[in-house]
Amino acid sequence: MIIDIHGHYTTAPKSLEAWRNRQIASLGNPAEAPKVSELNISDDELRESIETNQLRLMKERGLDLTVFSPRASFMAHHIGDFETSSTWAAICNELCYRVSQLFPEHFVPAAMLPQSPGVDVATCIPELVKCVEQYGNVAINLNPDPSGGHWTSPPLSDRSWYPIYEKMVEYDIPAMIHVSTSCNACFHTTGAHYLNADTTAFMQCLTSDLFKDFPTLRFVIPHGGGAVPYHWGRFRGLAQEMKKPSIEENLLKNIFFDTCVYHQPGIDLLTQVIPVDNILFASEMIGAVRGIDPKTGHYFDDTKRYVEAASIDPDQRYKIYEGNARRVYPRLDATLQAQGR
Amino acid sequence: MIIDIHGHYTTAPKSLEAWRNRQIASLGNPAEAPKVSELNISDDELRESIETNQLRLMKERGLDLTVFSPRASFMAHHIGDFETSSTWAAICNELCYRVSQLFPEHFVPAAMLPQSPGVDVATCIPELVKCVEQYGNVAINLNPDPSGGHWTSPPLSDRSWYPIYEKMVEYDIPAMIHVSTSCNACFHTTGAHYLNADTTAFMQCLTSDLFKDFPTLRFVIPHGGGAVPYHWGRFRGLAQEMKKPSIEENLLKNIFFDTCVYHQPGIDLLTQVIPVDNILFASEMIGAVRGIDPKTGHYFDDTKRYVEAASIDPDQRYKIYEGNARRVYPRLDATLQAQGR
Repeated sequence: MIIDIHGHYTTAPKSLEAWRNRQIASLGNPAEAPKVSELNISDDELRESIETNQLRLMKERGLDLTVFSPRASFMAHHIGDFETSSTWAAICNELCYRVSQLFPEHFVPAAMLPQSPGVDVATCIPELVKCVEQYGNVAINLNPDPSGGHWTSPPLSDRSWYPIYEKMVEYDIPAMIHVSTSCNACFHTTGAHYLNADTTAFMQCLTSDLFKDFPTLRFVIPHGGGAVPYHWGRFRGLAQEMKKPSIEENLLKNIFFDTCVYHQPGIDLLTQVIPVDNILFASEMIGAVRGIDPKTGHYFDDTKRYVEAASIDPDQRYKIYEGNARRVYPRLDATLQAQGR
Repeated sequence: MIIDIHGHYTTAPKSLEAWRNRQIASLGNPAEAPKVSELNISDDELRESIETNQLRLMKERGLDLTVFSPRASFMAHHIGDFETSSTWAAICNELCYRVSQLFPEHFVPAAMLPQSPGVDVATCIPELVKCVEQYGNVAINLNPDPSGGHWTSPPLSDRSWYPIYEKMVEYDIPAMIHVSTSCNACFHTTGAHYLNADTTAFMQCLTSDLFKDFPTLRFVIPHGGGAVPYHWGRFRGLAQEMKKPSIEENLLKNIFFDTCVYHQPGIDLLTQVIPVDNILFASEMIGAVRGIDPKTGHYFDDTKRYVEAASIDPDQRYKIYEGNARRVYPRLDATLQAQGR
């Protein structure tokens, strides 16, 4: 089985975006805020948006299942206040849940949280509980920068994040560390902010004792780990400089990288440098890079092709495609086992 | 000849740091500010600080010449105001100039600028002019984020940066895009902020028409280009998504990457992915990563070893070591030619 642990619902029916735009337009004028009940998306609309997009490409590429979360760039936690994010997250998570119910063999949900800059992250727990207990979510996406490119929250090692980690440990779910749209003109969202956040999160873990406090906490760092595998020697050297244990020993029980790297040399480096137990297959399809590479004639984000071509043996490939995902996402494994898979 | 285009004066005599600490302590109390004349560093002190450190390692590793600029993390443009930075930059640039005079065969200076957050970057021009015309500087370091991790300046494509670019074009000097210390707790300086800035700067160029306005402007992106070569497919795909010309065509006449990547797989990827004409040898020695890699028994930052082992031919290696540096830094070439090299 091939499990893609990083897919977002980027192709939701347009009425979702229209509702969100009305919500944003009403900020400061609560009387004009759209009601949740005004958004009506039918099962048929959901089905069509999936069958003609993600599921079509999954079938073309031979992917069996996607861990599916709300569109990352639309989380936009910097917009409005906690109530704004809370209403928006509930809507988006419900849609991913409904997709998982319509296509239980192909989509398993992961939740966005109703984070808001400066607001206690513990306020996200009720949504998290609902998503895990009622919607069968197997992971969360945690935004290390709800300000959207201003980086006004403390590092992930700060105790203010601990309430979320306690709940993650209780449920035994991992978090993908994933920022949203940048509203800082310096950072292009998918070309800079996403990759920077990946590198930043890794370094926040490296410099802290977070995983001493939470030995079973698991973070998935997307987009191939940002700059981390390419600069693995730098990080190994920095850890040594700080008299830390080796990063293999200190971080790799808790940190995992996905394969959202859109060319062969990148995947070759990833699989050469990072232990195979820490690599999880993903494509972030349909995402930031939707085109066909004129040099290969294949989609940039068809990452399965690169993993197939990497110099790894079948056992290692099995781990990347399925085994690691079942281990890092135990609730995904339980869902699959309940399906007899 | 092997030219290292990225070295900082990280080993200056302690009295420099003591003077800077007094300057910082006096902020708000100008009467207590130390005078420039109170800092006295002799030629012997300079000589010793270089001979026992950078020059010793250059000789051990077989490097001939370093483009030498003030310590990047000490630029700290976020501290104080323009006057603070102006005095500090003048001191640091003079020291690098003196080093270049003491060791003309081994060190050629590049200048830091007296940037200050929110201050017109044109205020840096007098220091730049002095450094080029009187001190023989062959390049500048340009900080895209003088706020030190808050990213409050506009992107490098903004017209407010143009006065510096006009002067660079006039002098035909490149800029290394290099941030300084992060004062944002989210970003570790050398493990996150530096790499993020590299990726960010590249993406600012990709999304803009900066090089249409300045066809001969040249940026060197250090630390192996941050995350860029590892994610080359992503950037190629994003450019295509934006209906831009290919990044090879659009950016590689103006953007160059150094080899400050501290392990063999990283250098292998760099030399495989990025055209050899766009790669310049560098080690950032003595810099962030000073230790010996227990896996190889050699210094992490001994990047010559990785370039030697890369699958490139002697002509390509010559370009990386010398040819490209002479082309991208014409004033360096002129300095060398005047020395009969």
